[in-house]
Amino acid sequence: MRKLKMTLAYDGTEYCGWQIQPDQITVQGTLQAILTEIDGAPVIAHGSGRTDAGVHALGQVASFKLGNPMPAENVPRAMNHLLPDSIRVLHVEEEAPDFHASWSAVSKTYEYRIWREEICPPFLSRYVYPHPYPLNEDSMRQAAPLFEGTHDFCSLVGAGGDEKQTTVRTIFSSQLRRDGDCLIYRVCGDGFLYRMVRNIVGTLLDVGRGNLKPDDISHLLKSNQRSEAGATAPARGLFLLEVEY
Amino acid sequence: MRKLKMTLAYDGTEYCGWQIQPDQITVQGTLQAILTEIDGAPVIAHGSGRTDAGVHALGQVASFKLGNPMPAENVPRAMNHLLPDSIRVLHVEEEAPDFHASWSAVSKTYEYRIWREEICPPFLSRYVYPHPYPLNEDSMRQAAPLFEGTHDFCSLVGAGGDEKQTTVRTIFSSQLRRDGDCLIYRVCGDGFLYRMVRNIVGTLLDVGRGNLKPDDISHLLKSNQRSEAGATAPARGLFLLEVEY
Repeated sequence: MRKLKMTLAYDGTEYCGWQIQPDQITVQGTLQAILTEIDGAPVIAHGSGRTDAGVHALGQVASFKLGNPMPAENVPRAMNHLLPDSIRVLHVEEEAPDFHASWSAVSKTYEYRIWREEICPPFLSRYVYPHPYPLNEDSMRQAAPLFEGTHDFCSLVGAGGDEKQTTVRTIFSSQLRRDGDCLIYRVCGDGFLYRMVRNIVGTLLDVGRGNLKPDDISHLLKSNQRSEAGATAPARGLFLLEVEY
Repeated sequence: MRKLKMTLAYDGTEYCGWQIQPDQITVQGTLQAILTEIDGAPVIAHGSGRTDAGVHALGQVASFKLGNPMPAENVPRAMNHLLPDSIRVLHVEEEAPDFHASWSAVSKTYEYRIWREEICPPFLSRYVYPHPYPLNEDSMRQAAPLFEGTHDFCSLVGAGGDEKQTTVRTIFSSQLRRDGDCLIYRVCGDGFLYRMVRNIVGTLLDVGRGNLKPDDISHLLKSNQRSEAGATAPARGLFLLEVEY
């Protein structure tokens, strides 16, 4: 059977995250049901990683085996016809048999959007975290790159994570910028622990509030204590932008 | 009691339209419940007009009497604190006692957004009508201004409308343009009949498909027959942009 690579976007608001679970509507479960319908036999779609409930994707990647001989370029149309509007398959291509969306990934890029004005337009409220309260954005901008490099991120892993292996990860780029009424945090790394991006954002928010200084970041990365980091930022501001191979 | 004028935006997706109805979640019902909570006595909010289920607003206007002496500029914050994220009060100001959001309105502007690319991003699917099929957009652009002027629009009123009075309306401006992947129809008039904007859009889509010629518009406006016009376009592409006084 051939191996296909699928790139997809989704609005995570109404899904219990990526990973298939009994009696829950999930992105993986929804995709697999439709691939199984197309193929006439059970299909498993491996994602590049899980996204939590409410987290969105502009460029999630999944790999799957397909028996159906339909040309790869016809798969998006066939799937989008059957999928709800909240999930769109953007692209499908043939891959080598050993390609795996998770194991083959070299890096992932996430973006977190914080709305800074008092009134958040109703059309954005599913896609940003409204935070109209005072923040020292200069301190946050200074603190953001301090997460770059290879660190043990165990102080930034969320409770409930299934991390039996190393918590060392490499962050290639970690930057905060203003874009109109939004504060945008973008991070690219070789992998992320459970809730790590939302915990980094929570920590940056603590820097913005003056509860942490930018210099406290290196202490935090050495502390290995979850309690040193900020609270987990809400899911709705987070987007998986891209997975690189 | 003083009279206040409120400007608000809402995502109409999950509301059964503007108008309060028993056992239904409506925009008017939601606003009135919160105004009543703030005032401690029943408050009625008169809208500039009804919007249908699924129709959005960037600048709906409502008028209401308030006993509570709180300064007008504090009302948006008090209301937004209690309202769901899908409704935001943008502005509240004092008005003359005889001001009425519907009767005092001079004109209204609506916009309808048609998504023209094959794949509609999940984050836009609640706010556009995806129509990736061939359309002669030049013919549609030519046809759009033919609705301008004072006409009897009875051929464009939706079934189920409560139109006991005149069906004559004046359209000041009716224009179609391309904006990136969207085809945008904007119309400004002194008033609109039930489903009239969506029926104009349906008629323009019929022009785009070649089922009607631009010249057929004047015939249609004289025919006074609903069956001559196109089907009602879906609610989700429609926005009430502004009400002028």
